Amino acid sequence: MEAAMANGPKKQEKTAGGIDGPTNPMVTPLLTDLYQFTMAYAYWKAGKHTERAVFDLYFRKNPFGGEFTVFAGLEECIKLIANFRFTEDEIAFIKASLPLSCEDGFYDYLRGTDCSDVEIHAISEGFVVFPKIPLMRIEGPIAVVQLLETPLINLVNYASLVATNAARHRFVAGKSKLLLEFGLRRAQGPDGGIGASKYCYMGGFDATSNVAAGKLFGIPLRGTHSHAFVSSFMSPDEIIDKSLQSCDCSNACEDFVSLVQAWLSKLKWSHLLGGIFGETNQSELAAFISYALAFPNTFLALVDTYDVMRSGIPNFCAVALALNELGYKAVGIRLDSGDLAYLSCEARKFFQAIEKEFIVPDFGNMNITASNDLNEETIDALNKQGHEVDAFGIGTHLVTCYAQPALGVVFKLVEINNQPRIKLSEDVTKVSIPCKKRCYRLYGKEGYPLVDIMTGENEPPPKVGERILCRHPFNESKRAYVVPQCVEELLKCYWPGRSGKDREELPSIKLIRERCIKQLGQMRPDHMRRLNPTPYKVSVSAKLYDFIHFLWLNEAPVGELQ
Amino acid sequence: MEAAMANGPKKQEKTAGGIDGPTNPMVTPLLTDLYQFTMAYAYWKAGKHTERAVFDLYFRKNPFGGEFTVFAGLEECIKLIANFRFTEDEIAFIKASLPLSCEDGFYDYLRGTDCSDVEIHAISEGFVVFPKIPLMRIEGPIAVVQLLETPLINLVNYASLVATNAARHRFVAGKSKLLLEFGLRRAQGPDGGIGASKYCYMGGFDATSNVAAGKLFGIPLRGTHSHAFVSSFMSPDEIIDKSLQSCDCSNACEDFVSLVQAWLSKLKWSHLLGGIFGETNQSELAAFISYALAFPNTFLALVDTYDVMRSGIPNFCAVALALNELGYKAVGIRLDSGDLAYLSCEARKFFQAIEKEFIVPDFGNMNITASNDLNEETIDALNKQGHEVDAFGIGTHLVTCYAQPALGVVFKLVEINNQPRIKLSEDVTKVSIPCKKRCYRLYGKEGYPLVDIMTGENEPPPKVGERILCRHPFNESKRAYVVPQCVEELLKCYWPGRSGKDREELPSIKLIRERCIKQLGQMRPDHMRRLNPTPYKVSVSAKLYDFIHFLWLNEAPVGELQ
Repeated sequence: MEAAMANGPKKQEKTAGGIDGPTNPMVTPLLTDLYQFTMAYAYWKAGKHTERAVFDLYFRKNPFGGEFTVFAGLEECIKLIANFRFTEDEIAFIKASLPLSCEDGFYDYLRGTDCSDVEIHAISEGFVVFPKIPLMRIEGPIAVVQLLETPLINLVNYASLVATNAARHRFVAGKSKLLLEFGLRRAQGPDGGIGASKYCYMGGFDATSNVAAGKLFGIPLRGTHSHAFVSSFMSPDEIIDKSLQSCDCSNACEDFVSLVQAWLSKLKWSHLLGGIFGETNQSELAAFISYALAFPNTFLALVDTYDVMRSGIPNFCAVALALNELGYKAVGIRLDSGDLAYLSCEARKFFQAIEKEFIVPDFGNMNITASNDLNEETIDALNKQGHEVDAFGIGTHLVTCYAQPALGVVFKLVEINNQPRIKLSEDVTKVSIPCKKRCYRLYGKEGYPLVDIMTGENEPPPKVGERILCRHPFNESKRAYVVPQCVEELLKCYWPGRSGKDREELPSIKLIRERCIKQLGQMRPDHMRRLNPTPYKVSVSAKLYDFIHFLWLNEAPVGELQ
Repeated sequence: MEAAMANGPKKQEKTAGGIDGPTNPMVTPLLTDLYQFTMAYAYWKAGKHTERAVFDLYFRKNPFGGEFTVFAGLEECIKLIANFRFTEDEIAFIKASLPLSCEDGFYDYLRGTDCSDVEIHAISEGFVVFPKIPLMRIEGPIAVVQLLETPLINLVNYASLVATNAARHRFVAGKSKLLLEFGLRRAQGPDGGIGASKYCYMGGFDATSNVAAGKLFGIPLRGTHSHAFVSSFMSPDEIIDKSLQSCDCSNACEDFVSLVQAWLSKLKWSHLLGGIFGETNQSELAAFISYALAFPNTFLALVDTYDVMRSGIPNFCAVALALNELGYKAVGIRLDSGDLAYLSCEARKFFQAIEKEFIVPDFGNMNITASNDLNEETIDALNKQGHEVDAFGIGTHLVTCYAQPALGVVFKLVEINNQPRIKLSEDVTKVSIPCKKRCYRLYGKEGYPLVDIMTGENEPPPKVGERILCRHPFNESKRAYVVPQCVEELLKCYWPGRSGKDREELPSIKLIRERCIKQLGQMRPDHMRRLNPTPYKVSVSAKLYDFIHFLWLNEAPVGELQ
């Protein structure tokens, strides 16, 4: 593997393994907690640093009160691992951060450290995943794997959280709506924004407003104009170049402003629409005309700067009808305040009345985008009230995961030197599941996943058509026989280290997105509903169950009642 | 200004202005919303792109139910502005993202675009700030300033939010406690973590666990070991090199393990401590001994892997006493679960009993760090119960701003071509305050800030000792005369553009931190308390008040009752 030895943030560069570095060049081996280095030193000093350890990365509880999670962030983890090398500059900083008494041999060790002896099995990115099941199994020299703990959790935690949040917004909005991620400005820092755009797309959004994310990941971009654009104009008089060629270039309208004003007047005195509005705001009208002159093919206007029904919609329609006369088709409007259910319905009626009165086919189907501080609850409320919104632009609540801004991903030692390890806790949900494990998803007759099961590494895998006992890992009485119609092994080798195994390819974001949408669609609906969803079952094999409880009794201190 | 023309993420490079690029090289002119480019094109197409606009960047409501905010993120904004140039690669991407019909002249315009004609006045970073007062006033060609909207909001929003959160945690913890930011793994992405470390330090934290942030910003680092370190050991038998030199190098202990075991036995049969514990966990004991052998000068142990009082504390004390015999002084313990109030008090009693029984001066003052899912509420609850914690390690709640994960920073047009602009809204708190303004903080006799006041750009400034009327911007009846004892102009020139003004220097993070702590200490306590804090007053001059309401009446449509 080629070392990335440049000082400062590393550029994205190809390594011998053919895997680029992390998207954010600030993701370096220093992006970890100091205690990973103090532990690495203590392991090294004890001669224990090369002992082979197995860690599981998993979470304990689905976010947002739901019963599913979308796994995301794997590609960035593998990019970090593939390029994991310390620069001299980084080693000098580590040395300056540790006590003077630390021996130089440790820094020589770090100098030679990479992840060539680390092996990573993971669930594929975009999969629907559940608590306790390892998302990643990281195996390697304990000192190296320990250094990876913090960045791997960091890269998986927010990615999975926001992808899940996106999927939840998709569920409530429905498949037919266009979902636009507009969160960059409110995200937690620059790559909070970039990560949100990437993982919301993965979780089922259609586009983003974030240009940098569009460039980095090929995500479709959307955006038109803001309120400031509207209020930066005073009146149509200030428009200098008023000419607009027709769509087919066959003729030119010399005074598009007058054409719009004529349409506005027709609307005002129209049979169906008369009386709805009087004088519209002239700075808004000027802004819409200017925007249409710049983008005659993609005219979409923000209509709530002054008054939606008395100014924004009539101004928009006048411009749209003028464009129509020249062979262009306006795209639609955006509503960013007020009662979105009511306003979208009123706007739709207005558009339909125009279609009828002026015989403009399709005018009634004008796109209506809504975008004011939306979240799952407000979209759900809109659905219940009835609305005519075609596209939702969602920002703050989506990207900051306002309803729950962190996922509790953990990283637990499950085996060292082939010795299984368990972490006990007075809280039974915090007891870790020991052993290097394999994980399978078992599917039922109707094609739904029924249960995930963990087994010891060397147990025979569950077989299609063969009955297998699935046990709750900690609750003796919860168990069920399952006859799987399909068995899917969940953990695949994404970084083989020196094992000689084949490495799974990292698919494109589009493929991951498709996989995610497909997986979400395959789940039994009661696991996915917003209110009181049914928990999906996560289990262990009978053999693993027995072993967990044997180990537990062995490790737990026996209390004394006094 | 020198152009940063490299493709891909730019490295931090010095510009002619002597200002480095943004800390995160992903902060480029593309890190903005697409609509900033569509608007820029529409402005350009209308020949309006060079019109001089003034925008205010401000927020409407203090976060976390409090009545103050810490302003942070300014340095990163200035770094972006100082290096704001499009690369050819970026321009090609913008071109590919806009309709084909857009004219090439626009891309030539972008090619020549920088911020040399933009002027930025801002409140100094680290200041305590309040709603409605502009944190930044951005003046320049409208197309350029519009492009800056998204990144400036992004860079200020989370920075100010998390700095405020840190300051709030400091308030509840008290000045004497050590506050450690441990949030990297749960932060929203890699530079959610890096930003959190930077801005929590600014807001009054003492150190971080994040090594990358330590290197980038010179923040003190802290960290020792995790539960995995403890459970990676089996028993003291596996320790190979058992020797430890005494602190003054005068002699060497050949078998430190036996020395510890002897102390453990003494503790067990001690007069004061007998009966508290029986057999301690041997894997924990091995881990503590190993850690002490690696870090004899800075021994701090995580004591809750098995059982705090029956295993962790006795094991720790045995190691600490053995170290003491060799002239070393152990640092202390960390508690990461359970009843922190109770356990910290019990641990303190144990330490004090040892100090007494074995005559080890200062052993009773051993440092106790607590770190389990802490936030303002849990620290407040600990204070009420009584505790013996000296240092708090805070992660998830601090860095994700769990209690409120976004600050509603906005960016509003207040003037164009010297014409004041107002943004109306049915919600009066959303009406913008028009005009290019100056802002002052007026101090009273006791040295507390009394009120912030906004005036028109050309009004004479408030004078010390002279009575001035301060009016609520929207509420006619709320007004007060103030005789300031000190007048501080808040908006300073941080980017002069071509104005010829002096540019304020960007101070070091340490200076900003000191300024912030000083400012927080200067506030009247009732503004800062957690429960029912008094709002700090924000006002406008009588002249500006009259003008706002003149403009408001001019712009608002007159309704018709039907």
